[in-house]
Amino acid sequence: MPLIEIHPQLAHNHGAANLKQEPFSWQLLIDRGVEILFLATPHEQSREWVPEALARGIRVIDLSGAWRLTDSANRAIYAFADEGTSQAASIQSQAVYGMPELHRSAIAGARLIANPGCYATSVILGLRPLVAAGLVDLDHGIVADSKSGVSGAGKAATAKTHFMYAADNLSAYGVFTHRHTGELLEQIGLDASQIVFTPHLLPIPRGILSTIYVYFSQPQSPESVSRVYHEFFAGSPMVRLYDHALPQIQYSVRTNYCDIGFQLASDGRRAVIVSCLDNLLKGASSQAVQNMNLMLGYGEAEGLE
Amino acid sequence: MPLIEIHPQLAHNHGAANLKQEPFSWQLLIDRGVEILFLATPHEQSREWVPEALARGIRVIDLSGAWRLTDSANRAIYAFADEGTSQAASIQSQAVYGMPELHRSAIAGARLIANPGCYATSVILGLRPLVAAGLVDLDHGIVADSKSGVSGAGKAATAKTHFMYAADNLSAYGVFTHRHTGELLEQIGLDASQIVFTPHLLPIPRGILSTIYVYFSQPQSPESVSRVYHEFFAGSPMVRLYDHALPQIQYSVRTNYCDIGFQLASDGRRAVIVSCLDNLLKGASSQAVQNMNLMLGYGEAEGLE
Amino acid sequence: MPLIEIHPQLAHNHGAANLKQEPFSWQLLIDRGVEILFLATPHEQSREWVPEALARGIRVIDLSGAWRLTDSANRAIYAFADEGTSQAASIQSQAVYGMPELHRSAIAGARLIANPGCYATSVILGLRPLVAAGLVDLDHGIVADSKSGVSGAGKAATAKTHFMYAADNLSAYGVFTHRHTGELLEQIGLDASQIVFTPHLLPIPRGILSTIYVYFSQPQSPESVSRVYHEFFAGSPMVRLYDHALPQIQYSVRTNYCDIGFQLASDGRRAVIVSCLDNLLKGASSQAVQNMNLMLGYGEAEGLE
Amino acid sequence: MPLIEIHPQLAHNHGAANLKQEPFSWQLLIDRGVEILFLATPHEQSREWVPEALARGIRVIDLSGAWRLTDSANRAIYAFADEGTSQAASIQSQAVYGMPELHRSAIAGARLIANPGCYATSVILGLRPLVAAGLVDLDHGIVADSKSGVSGAGKAATAKTHFMYAADNLSAYGVFTHRHTGELLEQIGLDASQIVFTPHLLPIPRGILSTIYVYFSQPQSPESVSRVYHEFFAGSPMVRLYDHALPQIQYSVRTNYCDIGFQLASDGRRAVIVSCLDNLLKGASSQAVQNMNLMLGYGEAEGLE
Repeated sequence: MPLIEIHPQLAHNHGAANLKQEPFSWQLLIDRGVEILFLATPHEQSREWVPEALARGIRVIDLSGAWRLTDSANRAIYAFADEGTSQAASIQSQAVYGMPELHRSAIAGARLIANPGCYATSVILGLRPLVAAGLVDLDHGIVADSKSGVSGAGKAATAKTHFMYAADNLSAYGVFTHRHTGELLEQIGLDASQIVFTPHLLPIPRGILSTIYVYFSQPQSPESVSRVYHEFFAGSPMVRLYDHALPQIQYSVRTNYCDIGFQLASDGRRAVIVSCLDNLLKGASSQAVQNMNLMLGYGEAEGLE
Repeated sequence: MPLIEIHPQLAHNHGAANLKQEPFSWQLLIDRGVEILFLATPHEQSREWVPEALARGIRVIDLSGAWRLTDSANRAIYAFADEGTSQAASIQSQAVYGMPELHRSAIAGARLIANPGCYATSVILGLRPLVAAGLVDLDHGIVADSKSGVSGAGKAATAKTHFMYAADNLSAYGVFTHRHTGELLEQIGLDASQIVFTPHLLPIPRGILSTIYVYFSQPQSPESVSRVYHEFFAGSPMVRLYDHALPQIQYSVRTNYCDIGFQLASDGRRAVIVSCLDNLLKGASSQAVQNMNLMLGYGEAEGLE
Repeated sequence: MPLIEIHPQLAHNHGAANLKQEPFSWQLLIDRGVEILFLATPHEQSREWVPEALARGIRVIDLSGAWRLTDSANRAIYAFADEGTSQAASIQSQAVYGMPELHRSAIAGARLIANPGCYATSVILGLRPLVAAGLVDLDHGIVADSKSGVSGAGKAATAKTHFMYAADNLSAYGVFTHRHTGELLEQIGLDASQIVFTPHLLPIPRGILSTIYVYFSQPQSPESVSRVYHEFFAGSPMVRLYDHALPQIQYSVRTNYCDIGFQLASDGRRAVIVSCLDNLLKGASSQAVQNMNLMLGYGEAEGLE
Repeated sequence: MPLIEIHPQLAHNHGAANLKQEPFSWQLLIDRGVEILFLATPHEQSREWVPEALARGIRVIDLSGAWRLTDSANRAIYAFADEGTSQAASIQSQAVYGMPELHRSAIAGARLIANPGCYATSVILGLRPLVAAGLVDLDHGIVADSKSGVSGAGKAATAKTHFMYAADNLSAYGVFTHRHTGELLEQIGLDASQIVFTPHLLPIPRGILSTIYVYFSQPQSPESVSRVYHEFFAGSPMVRLYDHALPQIQYSVRTNYCDIGFQLASDGRRAVIVSCLDNLLKGASSQAVQNMNLMLGYGEAEGLE
C-alpha cells in the first residue's frame, strides 16, 4: 500500500510519495545493509524477531515492552510464551534499558535496546535523581499520578479510543496493575510496596504529565533539591529543569524533552514533582533516535532539537 | 439587561424571556418575601452582605469561601478585611458547612450555610468515611490529586481561561497553597502535614475527578472498605458508590451525584479512591439546592434526580 | 448482559440496575403488549423487521434510513436487497416521514414512521418554510454546509471515530454523495441540481450546525423573512426561531429543539440561514418521541421540554 | 520582561533565555541595522508606523489589515483615522498584497508588504485559479464557508476566546460583514454580490478549512479542473494539490502549506473546493517569512519546509 493513501498530505513530498510499505523480510534488511533495526511491534513479535536479528548481527532498538524488565516477577504480567527458556534469558541479559540519562555508556555499546515505556520515562526521570541522592523516605511511600493523551492507547480503534469515550472525560485505569510499574521499580530501585502508580486517560491527543509525591527523610530547601536535579542531569541535553515555574503538557508536546519541575511544602519534608513529555517522542520514537545517536557515536541530541 | 441577550436560546421560553436582571436591593428581597438568599458573589461581598441578611431575618446559602473555615489560621489565606472583628466571629459561629452527608441535621436548622468548595466536596466525600472509621494511617500521609474542568476557574476571561491556554493541555497549580485545603483539614479532621492536595486544570468544560491515595493501619479487604462507605452514606441519596468499576467524569457530569469508587492493592494496605462530581452542580449550585431542601423540610433530593 | 456493565453509573438507580438487555423476539413484544416499536437498527434489519411488525399489528417508529425515501432513484444509494418487491413497495407507501413540523396530521394516523436523518432535519427545517413560500430562486442553487459532532458517526469504533482522527481536526466527507441528500430533495421539493449538501465531521461529541445559503427571487426584508418562518412554525413547539442572534451548537445541544436564525445581505437577495440541533435528540431519539406523542394523542412536546 | 516568564519552556534554550523584550524605538532598529520590519500590531498602529519606517528606508511586512485593500469602499469597514489623506494614499499605492502565489515578482521588489488575512488566504488560493481561467459562472454566486480555530481570534482574553464559549461549540459570526471580504473581492476579482463568505469559530486551537462552492459555465471533468490548478500553482512550493483525497485541517496544521482539493458533481457543473491551512503559519507568520524570502532573494520556501 503506498504511504500516501494513509497520509495523503505526503503526496506533495517527492521523497515520501514514492515510498512503499514493504513486507518484512530478513533478506531485505541484509540487502539494504541495515545496521540498526527499530522494532515497533507487539511484544510477542519482538520476542520472536529480536533473537533472530541479533543472531544475524543486526542491532535492535525495540519499542515494545518485550525486553525492558530483568526481574521475572515483574515480567510475569506480560506472560511471554518463551518465558524461562535459556534463549530468552540470554537475550534479556544483553538488553539495555534505553534511557540515556541513566544508562548512557551502556547504551553506546549495546546490541539490544529496550526502549522505555512512555509513562515510565516521565516517572523515572522525575524520581530517580532524588532517590539516588538518598533524599526520599521510601517507607513513607511514593505516589505517581500520571495522565496521558489518547495516542498513548495506540492506533487501534477500540471502545476506549472512540472519541465519545475519551472526549470531555477523565478516567483512571490499570490501578495497581499497569505494566509500566515494573520499569519504575527496577529503574528507580524500589519495592512494589514503596510506590503507587495510577495512569489516567486525558481527552487530548498527546502528552503525559506525571504528578509525583514524595516525603524527604530530612527537610530540604528548594536550592538543595534543585542542586540534586542539576547534578544528575548535567550532560543530559533532553531534560529541561524548571526552577521558576512548573512544566505543563503544552510546553513539552512536539519536543523530545522531558520537562521537570517541583514545589516544596513549607516544612521542607514534602515535595510535589511535575514531569512532562510527549508520549510519542521522548516517550517513544525520539527517545529511540536518542539511543540510536549514542549507538552510532553521533551527538545525543542530533536531529532532536 | 434582559436575560435573553446573554442567553439567546431562552427567548423561546416565555417564562425566561420576560425575566430581567435586577439590581440588588434589600427592599426588593423583602417585597418579594424572600426566605432564603443564595449568594454567588466574591468572598468579600459575602462578608459584607451576610451579616445584613441575617440581621433582616433572611437565611443565606453562601456559595463563596467567605464562611467555610472555622480556624482563623486556615482563613488567613483569604485575608478578609473584617477578620478578627466580633461581628465576623459571631457570624462565623453560626455558619454550617453545607455538606449534607456530614452535617444533615445542623443544615436543617441553620441560618447560614457555607456551601462547600468544588474540589473540597470531591475529596471530603471520598476520604471522610475512611478517616472517620479509623482505617487510615494518617502519619503515612494522604495524597489528593484533583483535576477540574475549566468552568471551575470562573466566567471571567483571563489568560488561564483562554481556549489557547487550556485546550490540549494539563497543568498543576496552587501546589501546597490552594484555598480549598483548609476545608479538607477541618472537615476530614487532619493536620496540614497529613495531606497533600494538588489541583490541575483539565481541557474540558466541566467535571472534577480526584484520585486519592491512602495507607491503612491494618490490611483491609474490598468488602471491609466497601462496608465502611455504604454505612457512612446510608441515607445519602446524592452519593453513588461504585463497587464494580471506577467512576469517570462523564458519569457524573450534569448530575448532582458525587460518584465514589476505590481499588485496593493486593497487600490490603494501600488504596486508591476515585471521586467524581460536576463542579457546577454537586460542587456548587445543586449542592446549594440540596441544602435548601433540608432547610425547608423538603426531600433532600427534591428536584435533583 | 446487565445494563450496568455498560453504564456503571446506573447501578445506583434501582430501576435501571435491574434492567437486562433481552434478546429480541416477537413473542416478547406481544407478551408485553407493545403498541409502538422503536427500531434503531441497521437499515437492512429494518427492511426485514418492519413488515413483520406491521403484519402483527405493531406500529413502528424506525430510526434507520430504510423507509425514508419514496423515490426509487433516491433510494438506490442504499441498495436494499428487497428493492423492487411488491411487499417493499407496499410498506413504503404506508411510511410517513416523521417530521412533525411538516407532516403532523399524517404522523398521528401512521402505522410506520420513518424517523428523519439528523442532517436532513436541520436542513429541511431551515429551508422548507422559505421554499414553500416561494421566496427562493431555485435556479440559483442552494448550498447546505453542515457540520456534525462525532456521535453522528455511530458507536462503532472505526478509524474515523478514533479520538486521534477527530480531535483537533475538521474534515468534509460524502461530498455530493451523502445518503441524507435524498431526504432533502423529497421533503423540500428540489431537483438534485438545485442543492449542494456537504457534511463535515466536527471535533465535538454532539450537535449539528447547518449553514444554508439561498438567493431570493425578490428582495426581502428581515421582517418579511421572519414572518414566513413564524407562520410556518406556528404551533410547532420544538422549533425555536432566533430573531436577534444566530443559533450556536451549544444552545441546542441536550435539547429537543431545532434552533433557526438567519442574516440577510444588504441587497435583500441573499440570505444565510443557521440551523442547529442535537443529532442525538431532535436529530434522532427525541424526534422519535415527538412522533410517538402524536401517534398516541399526547401533547407533542410531552417529556421533551 | 524576560521572554522566559511568558514561555518558561525556553529557559533551557541558552539563546532564548537571554532574549529580552525591548521597547520599540526607531533608533534601536537603526542601531541593529534592520532591513525588514515585521509588524504584528493593531491596524491603527500600522497606519502610523509604516509611513515612518518607509521614510527611514526600512522595508515593512505588515501582518495587520492596515494596507491590504486598494478600494476605499472595501477599506471603509476599518474606518482608519487617516483615511483620505494624501500620505495614506501614497503609502497604499506602494503596498503589495503579500500572496506569493499571485504576486511573486511584485513582492520581490516591494517596500511594503500587506500580509494577507488568514481566511482570505485560504479562500483566494482555492478560488483564484478557477476564476482566472474563466471556469466559474460568477452570476450564479460563490459560497465560501470557512471555519477557523480559536487562535484566529487573537491572544486577548475575551468572552469569545473563553474556553467555555468555544469548547464543544460551533458558531457563525460576521455574516456578510467580515473584514476579510474585501480581500476576497479584490484578489479574486469579484463584485460584492458574487460571493457570500461566512466564518465560523471551531473548537480547536488552530487551522482553517474553507469549503467553497462554485458553478461552472461549462461542464468540467476532474482532469480539466485539476489541470487548471496544477498550471496555476506550478512553481508555487507552498501549495499542495490533492488529486485523490480532500485535505483536512490536521494535514496542514503546523505546516506553511495551503492544501487544496475538490470534488465535482456528476453533472460537471458544480464543484466543492476544500482549502486548508494553519492560520498562524500560511495564514500569518510563515507567509510573512515566505514574503521576506522573496524580498531578500532567498529561495521562497527557505526555512518553511
